[in-house]
Amino acid sequence: MSYQVPKGTQDILPSEIGKWHRLEELIRQFCYVYNYKEIRTPIFEHTNVFKRGNDSSDMVNKEMYTFQLENSATSLTLRPEGTAGVARAFVEHKLYGNADLPMKMYYVGPQFRHERPQKGRMRIFNQFGVEVIGAKSAMLDVEAIALGWSFVSALGLQDMKVLINTLGDDASRAAYRKALKEHFKADIDTMCADCKRRYEQNPLRILDCKVDKDKDIMKNVPRMADYLNEESKAYFDEVLAGLDALGIPYEVDDRLVRGLDYYTHTVFEVVSVNKEMGAQSTVFAGGRYDGLVEYFGGPTSMSGIGWAMGLERLILACEAEGIELADEESLDAYVVCLSSSVRKQVLQLVTQLRAAGYSTDTDYLDRSFKAQFKTVARTRAKAAIVVGEDDIEKGSVTIKRVADQKKLEVKLEDIVEGMDTLFQEEACSCHEEGSKHE
Amino acid sequence: MSYQVPKGTQDILPSEIGKWHRLEELIRQFCYVYNYKEIRTPIFEHTNVFKRGNDSSDMVNKEMYTFQLENSATSLTLRPEGTAGVARAFVEHKLYGNADLPMKMYYVGPQFRHERPQKGRMRIFNQFGVEVIGAKSAMLDVEAIALGWSFVSALGLQDMKVLINTLGDDASRAAYRKALKEHFKADIDTMCADCKRRYEQNPLRILDCKVDKDKDIMKNVPRMADYLNEESKAYFDEVLAGLDALGIPYEVDDRLVRGLDYYTHTVFEVVSVNKEMGAQSTVFAGGRYDGLVEYFGGPTSMSGIGWAMGLERLILACEAEGIELADEESLDAYVVCLSSSVRKQVLQLVTQLRAAGYSTDTDYLDRSFKAQFKTVARTRAKAAIVVGEDDIEKGSVTIKRVADQKKLEVKLEDIVEGMDTLFQEEACSCHEEGSKHE
Repeated sequence: MSYQVPKGTQDILPSEIGKWHRLEELIRQFCYVYNYKEIRTPIFEHTNVFKRGNDSSDMVNKEMYTFQLENSATSLTLRPEGTAGVARAFVEHKLYGNADLPMKMYYVGPQFRHERPQKGRMRIFNQFGVEVIGAKSAMLDVEAIALGWSFVSALGLQDMKVLINTLGDDASRAAYRKALKEHFKADIDTMCADCKRRYEQNPLRILDCKVDKDKDIMKNVPRMADYLNEESKAYFDEVLAGLDALGIPYEVDDRLVRGLDYYTHTVFEVVSVNKEMGAQSTVFAGGRYDGLVEYFGGPTSMSGIGWAMGLERLILACEAEGIELADEESLDAYVVCLSSSVRKQVLQLVTQLRAAGYSTDTDYLDRSFKAQFKTVARTRAKAAIVVGEDDIEKGSVTIKRVADQKKLEVKLEDIVEGMDTLFQEEACSCHEEGSKHE
Repeated sequence: MSYQVPKGTQDILPSEIGKWHRLEELIRQFCYVYNYKEIRTPIFEHTNVFKRGNDSSDMVNKEMYTFQLENSATSLTLRPEGTAGVARAFVEHKLYGNADLPMKMYYVGPQFRHERPQKGRMRIFNQFGVEVIGAKSAMLDVEAIALGWSFVSALGLQDMKVLINTLGDDASRAAYRKALKEHFKADIDTMCADCKRRYEQNPLRILDCKVDKDKDIMKNVPRMADYLNEESKAYFDEVLAGLDALGIPYEVDDRLVRGLDYYTHTVFEVVSVNKEMGAQSTVFAGGRYDGLVEYFGGPTSMSGIGWAMGLERLILACEAEGIELADEESLDAYVVCLSSSVRKQVLQLVTQLRAAGYSTDTDYLDRSFKAQFKTVARTRAKAAIVVGEDDIEKGSVTIKRVADQKKLEVKLEDIVEGMDTLFQEEACSCHEEGSKHE
């Protein structure tokens, strides 16, 4: 019998974890300076949190991990995206009553969609997302995009492009929807099943269709821009002016509608144009939403803006541009144990070094001197400390600095001071402090 | 219609996230110095990863979130614990071939058990766990316990106690199991349904029974210690000697068997004896296991030791001892915006400060001067920067250091230098570097 991860999922092994730590630390730093605070919602929610009435998105219609436990009437769904859970939490905990609106929030964690797996599209995938709820200001749209843009720029990504569009307010969108229905009316019977459904539920999403995209009827579709009222136009102009002010390059793409039904006004996608990225090129994408807080029973006035970034996708984009996200960590000290009779004293030495913040390891398998020194090399340990019966007898050991073979003999109880002496030149005292725990 | 988190689950709100960040940072630091590397396995696995043959544990028998999607023959289970997934990954990726065994691994993340929720027992809960696989050495048992013990000690927990026992090797355990069956034989019909099942599947677990624990038959049960062979006894003595060498206090509890069937030799529980903890007092617990890697198709020689710590439980233990895990973060600068006409320039100022690593925010709602200064107080911003049309016109703004009201006027383009000047005395340059991104 063989045991493997479920299809479309993966392990992140110790050898790969460094790049995730790098991303997560950078996410935390960026969100800190932008004053976005982390929120964590449950991995599963009641299904109606995600399946909202007349939703036309594929995600909700086909791709959800929905289940019911035996003997339970409750339908649960593994979260397919982050926005709904955050909006639900915003209402459930009455965060709309906060004195300082908007609430600027972010999340990092797994999402679940039962799609056909392919490169850059996993069934369990990790998203970093932001949600800013409780205020409507074009400057917040700009800020949210700026946060994501400066984050990917800090990673070194260069082949990136911001595509942006507006869906206008409800009135503009209603007018546009009507025009689209008029336009597709005569031909809808010749179009794909998804488009027929979208025609009824949300004709804007026909523009997103990958099946019908080359049909003649798609070429001269009405343009959203022609159905925007003054207010919607002014809002969009303000967003674009803000992006200009921050020097963020963008392209207005009037076919961009995004796959979720709740968007209003600004929608955007930030894509990698690197040719290795192929079909799965969107790194982060999102938009403004007005009705979601109200749907969950909150006040009507709570507009939000958010986006989500696929971290597996982001890692692929970095690889495509040759960006190394992390070096493997090296060890500060490896204690070579020459005899099982000194194992206890070795453990005490190791424990002292660790308590002082030095990343330290030793041998547990009574391996040969030679085998242990191979480990010193493989772990790129900065110091090797050889301990045998003689050393314990005379009460002192020798620390060898691997880089230049410099040696220092210290009493057993002074092992930490010895390491401090040999390695203090490497970092200023303040820096060392940071890598130690009390 | 009302929308709430599913029963037994919870949101972690921005106001609560600080303590989680503190814990996670400390976990990463401790694992770094102990040279344990993080591994991440999927949130769900094939059900047979957890449901292994004749397993008698309640967790596997009653509490799993097991589901099958429509039109799919695959049974999936949300992971109820971390060890099985790590052992599966260890085999699937042939980590047993690593040149430096054991693999010392840790994990942090959600686990799922469909239990009756109570204080300290959630249906979705977070665990920090370690697994050291590929070597059998009493010093590894000691090291693993030492890692957990020094971690909870660093948090400041004092009302903690290590309970430890040995289940011996297979031969010792078989002899003990036989003695237990003999002992309970005449009375098993009077015992609870779970005990009847345990009698057949794993009579050791009868010692764990909370229903039958006060029955006479439980008082004079045979003692494991009397059935240990020499090798098992010697191994346990070495573990205890190691704990002594590191000054970790413990109590041998010969009734301790732990709830999972795969344990062999050392088992332990680290409990809070603080009276506020009540029935859910175990903070971390685990033991050695021999057969798990083999079960997943790996080599027979791969012994492991591991434990898991419930983080919600850990937070409760900290609260019971009055330990504050985190202060709320304060803002470095708040930019007070006096007119919507200068919003774009304000956004540019804010962006410059953030790019320099200063945590910065501003108003997006055209609120009054007074309302914005209330936000300065609530966010405990270190600096307030007021920007109106006049300031933009003359090209300079004033930074006010809130603590002592000291003011500094700087040109718009020198805003970062101004902040550096006012706040450089607070931290050495190296420290500041660490909190900034490029």
